[in-house]
Amino acid sequence: MTDDRYPYRREFPTRWNDNDVFGHVNNTVYYAAMDTTVTSWLLTEAGVRMMDGDTIAVVRASSCEYEASVSYPDVLDVGLRAGRVGTTSVTWEFGMRRAGDDALVARGRFVHVFLDRATLRPVPVPADLRARVEDTLVVEREE
Amino acid sequence: MTDDRYPYRREFPTRWNDNDVFGHVNNTVYYAAMDTTVTSWLLTEAGVRMMDGDTIAVVRASSCEYEASVSYPDVLDVGLRAGRVGTTSVTWEFGMRRAGDDALVARGRFVHVFLDRATLRPVPVPADLRARVEDTLVVEREE
Amino acid sequence: MTDDRYPYRREFPTRWNDNDVFGHVNNTVYYAAMDTTVTSWLLTEAGVRMMDGDTIAVVRASSCEYEASVSYPDVLDVGLRAGRVGTTSVTWEFGMRRAGDDALVARGRFVHVFLDRATLRPVPVPADLRARVEDTLVVEREE
Amino acid sequence: MTDDRYPYRREFPTRWNDNDVFGHVNNTVYYAAMDTTVTSWLLTEAGVRMMDGDTIAVVRASSCEYEASVSYPDVLDVGLRAGRVGTTSVTWEFGMRRAGDDALVARGRFVHVFLDRATLRPVPVPADLRARVEDTLVVEREE
Repeated sequence: MTDDRYPYRREFPTRWNDNDVFGHVNNTVYYAAMDTTVTSWLLTEAGVRMMDGDTIAVVRASSCEYEASVSYPDVLDVGLRAGRVGTTSVTWEFGMRRAGDDALVARGRFVHVFLDRATLRPVPVPADLRARVEDTLVVEREE
Repeated sequence: MTDDRYPYRREFPTRWNDNDVFGHVNNTVYYAAMDTTVTSWLLTEAGVRMMDGDTIAVVRASSCEYEASVSYPDVLDVGLRAGRVGTTSVTWEFGMRRAGDDALVARGRFVHVFLDRATLRPVPVPADLRARVEDTLVVEREE
Repeated sequence: MTDDRYPYRREFPTRWNDNDVFGHVNNTVYYAAMDTTVTSWLLTEAGVRMMDGDTIAVVRASSCEYEASVSYPDVLDVGLRAGRVGTTSVTWEFGMRRAGDDALVARGRFVHVFLDRATLRPVPVPADLRARVEDTLVVEREE
Repeated sequence: MTDDRYPYRREFPTRWNDNDVFGHVNNTVYYAAMDTTVTSWLLTEAGVRMMDGDTIAVVRASSCEYEASVSYPDVLDVGLRAGRVGTTSVTWEFGMRRAGDDALVARGRFVHVFLDRATLRPVPVPADLRARVEDTLVVEREE
């Protein structure tokens, strides 16, 4: 698995108080890293208006598998790609490394469901967003 | 200094990931405890509508002095009283103990300034809120 | 699914700053709720010495499925039960409700692997811990 | 007040879940920014061994004054300088800006007291640390 499997990448510096009593970044922080990275892509690459668009994205499921630990002052390098792009949902996949290092320390997944802001009922993934995902975040895979 | 110096009290249980590498609740968590306690009072005792009232309260200053440490699974017992009640601001004062213990582990202070939600300009503390503060949160003091 | 499917239950009060811009508790907070609840059980019910025992437990995987949202000042009622108890790992399962409400708002899972503190190599789940898990946290299930 | 009043500066990127219901970075996050910045200096510039040195630094007091708000994805640019350097304590002063912007959004202060790790009694600021503070973090000031 190489870097180009995750087309969008952002650094996520850890904070001193992310370290827990074992001196390692607490397991919950990786979810903040994934949440921040996908939101960054939605805001800056896809032009999604989180606060006043017609459609909102809510997290339906998330998961993470941990291979190794990191510790402040390590910087997480978070890669994002698309998994399944469904009718009303998108599954995002994340590969996290220690910046400057090749090995993944964690892999994760978020499932976003798209809802009408007013009715809170599922709606199709907006067409321009779907196109942007398919153009830039879907990768070939061997696995 | 006794308990009745802080007329409103709420428990604030600590979380496992509040502990930092020294095995103590990180210094930043006490601010979450104070922020949560004053918001609890504003919502439940003063009927302030945080999301859609005409007036919003913003934090202009905060501070904390630490006397001792606490560690998960300790519960913080946070006491609230009013300090100075100005024309457009209220200073809140906090006394924090380990639940079940008399000694203060920390004392803190928040200054809220009241703003018009639309113009973001300072406005007088709403009359009903001022009355509620003066009736229930102002205490005699010897210091 | 009823309450007795999760034999150990703890309240996890939300904090004002757990709410995100949508006015709901952010998805990452549920992991702090699960992490705190299982740690509470390990410390208080199983006598695990997190800081100086011979064996440490590290999170190998975690996941959560969200059914509904909660908002401060809601209290999460977190239920814990054991899933698979393996040779060197335990899978914990969580059911989370809004306190006072019957419906689950979220279900989650943590996989702990047990390591020797010195060598960081996997070791069998300590016998007394395994017994305690099997006696108190394994439930019959229909699903 | 210009940038060179804070000789050590570090970027502190905000996270999506730092934003609270008002769409602004919550007031507690500035303390994480200050805590992380002074720890960064202690670790990387002063060679302090947080985990196993003879002396530990504990926060005795902290404070912050807020001039303006920031919102994710803003990056905080945190400047550090020394205030009072006492016998057993150091007061750190912070100036925080939005990266790329000149105006301070917040100013803060931390007081560290140095303790013997074993006895937890105050000890003099270690001589090499004191020298490093005085050489690099004390600035002339007009105020």
